[in-house]
Amino acid sequence: MSLMNKAIVATLPLVPKPLVRHFANRYIAGDKLEDAVRVANALNKRGICATIDVLGEEVDDRGEALAAVEDYKSVLAAIDAEKLDSNISLKPTMFGLKIDKGFCRENIGAICAEAKRYDNFVRIDMEDSSCTQDTLDLYYSLREEYGNVGTVIQSYLRRSLADCVGLAAAKANLRLCKGIYVEPREIAFKDKAVINANFGLLLDVLLGGGCYVGIATHDEKMVWEGSRAVHKFGLKRDQYEFQMLLGVDAKLRDVIVAQGHKLRVYVPFGTAWYPYSTRRLKENPHLAGQTFRNIFAKYEFE
Amino acid sequence: MSLMNKAIVATLPLVPKPLVRHFANRYIAGDKLEDAVRVANALNKRGICATIDVLGEEVDDRGEALAAVEDYKSVLAAIDAEKLDSNISLKPTMFGLKIDKGFCRENIGAICAEAKRYDNFVRIDMEDSSCTQDTLDLYYSLREEYGNVGTVIQSYLRRSLADCVGLAAAKANLRLCKGIYVEPREIAFKDKAVINANFGLLLDVLLGGGCYVGIATHDEKMVWEGSRAVHKFGLKRDQYEFQMLLGVDAKLRDVIVAQGHKLRVYVPFGTAWYPYSTRRLKENPHLAGQTFRNIFAKYEFE
Repeated sequence: MSLMNKAIVATLPLVPKPLVRHFANRYIAGDKLEDAVRVANALNKRGICATIDVLGEEVDDRGEALAAVEDYKSVLAAIDAEKLDSNISLKPTMFGLKIDKGFCRENIGAICAEAKRYDNFVRIDMEDSSCTQDTLDLYYSLREEYGNVGTVIQSYLRRSLADCVGLAAAKANLRLCKGIYVEPREIAFKDKAVINANFGLLLDVLLGGGCYVGIATHDEKMVWEGSRAVHKFGLKRDQYEFQMLLGVDAKLRDVIVAQGHKLRVYVPFGTAWYPYSTRRLKENPHLAGQTFRNIFAKYEFE
Repeated sequence: MSLMNKAIVATLPLVPKPLVRHFANRYIAGDKLEDAVRVANALNKRGICATIDVLGEEVDDRGEALAAVEDYKSVLAAIDAEKLDSNISLKPTMFGLKIDKGFCRENIGAICAEAKRYDNFVRIDMEDSSCTQDTLDLYYSLREEYGNVGTVIQSYLRRSLADCVGLAAAKANLRLCKGIYVEPREIAFKDKAVINANFGLLLDVLLGGGCYVGIATHDEKMVWEGSRAVHKFGLKRDQYEFQMLLGVDAKLRDVIVAQGHKLRVYVPFGTAWYPYSTRRLKENPHLAGQTFRNIFAKYEFE
């Protein structure tokens, strides 16, 4: 990371929220469900699937968690009504994981039940390492009851190889990504080369074990690892998918689609856009720098 | 390597010995056997095995070589008396390899015989490339006679792949490291990426061939290669080990232990600390620079 980029990340808490929002606009469908529906529809028309996410995390109020259940039920209803090719992604801490695990399981369980009614699918997102074990526990338990559930593995975690051995044996439906949260060295690899090599290894363990994997990356090298693994195991188009976030590298998105792979784009919407956006900023400080320079350049000439 | 660090390495012969000693303290248990016993004991208490090494190399006096045999016999006796989980590591040039190979074999043979009496194990360290073939010959010959012997393979040597094919066929007990001596390009790879890739390849050849391997590294990427290979061959905890040097990256050491791997730390002691310490200095000029800056900063204020 360059000095300039480090400075941007370090001063992130000082960046005025309207500037963060300006930066975030490209990554978020909008404030409302109708924004997510519009974006998912547009993606579908170009042959791309979606996964809709209601922004929100680290909820410490039971009422808020229950409201989130209703929000997701509305999303599922809208996907069905609009005949979208989309599933949903959700974060356990939005449903009270940090308040009470049983309460959280009930809430996500209610969404899984609703999704099952619509023959849809629920991806349980993976958050920081304080949630890893609880999220995997949630996944195993909800999958046993509802079936239509998947979760996420992060290649930067030292534990992931061991987790994948278990998940492969269970033929889990997984998203594999590198991971974006700030973690201590004891828990996560810090060397990019190791994180990348581990991504390739985990892909082999999961795909080789018969898991359906969402290969979630914007890194050309990991997209290549995906193609390599798909070739290695002779997979058909319906045995895996690539995944990307809304607003990131549309050119790479087109390349993946043009090569005949299934691609799913993560479509977040809602008003709780701040934590999601700052993670995107940290992930891509170079782009953040450009955005800020553009904004300041604009101000200069106004 | 930065210019500053290159300067430190280039001027190493000019660095006053007390300064080198100051730097070396962290890498060496102390001057005496009791220091090594104390350190090995402390490691054992934290679930880490040891290998005790008496510092000394490039001996050109027969009396000195014979004294080294007695020193190692004392080490074996101490390991037994103190019930340490430790074996021993020794350098052939300390036992007269450069004087007379037969004499050297007799000396190390005497140690192997003594180790066998204690049901212990002797690791024959690998030195610079002028010793490679002689050390392998020594290994094959001593192993045939005593059994409780292993040696070392360096992934920076161009010959190592061929050596490993033979050693794997013989189901040798080996330490695999990158190698630290300064070697000409004809003999050793100079490109770090090649040395690393070769490390992974040799690991596969050796572990795949049923060898017991001590994966000796402080490089996160090579630790990952170890985990990868252990997974690939489905090895149990007693079929391999990780190895690190005393004084290097205790955090990584803890990570390896926490993941359930067996770990052995190299514990050198003795008064002939200079060559060992300068190799550590060359290996880690950044740290050396810090040490020297700290020392000079201290002098400035005294």
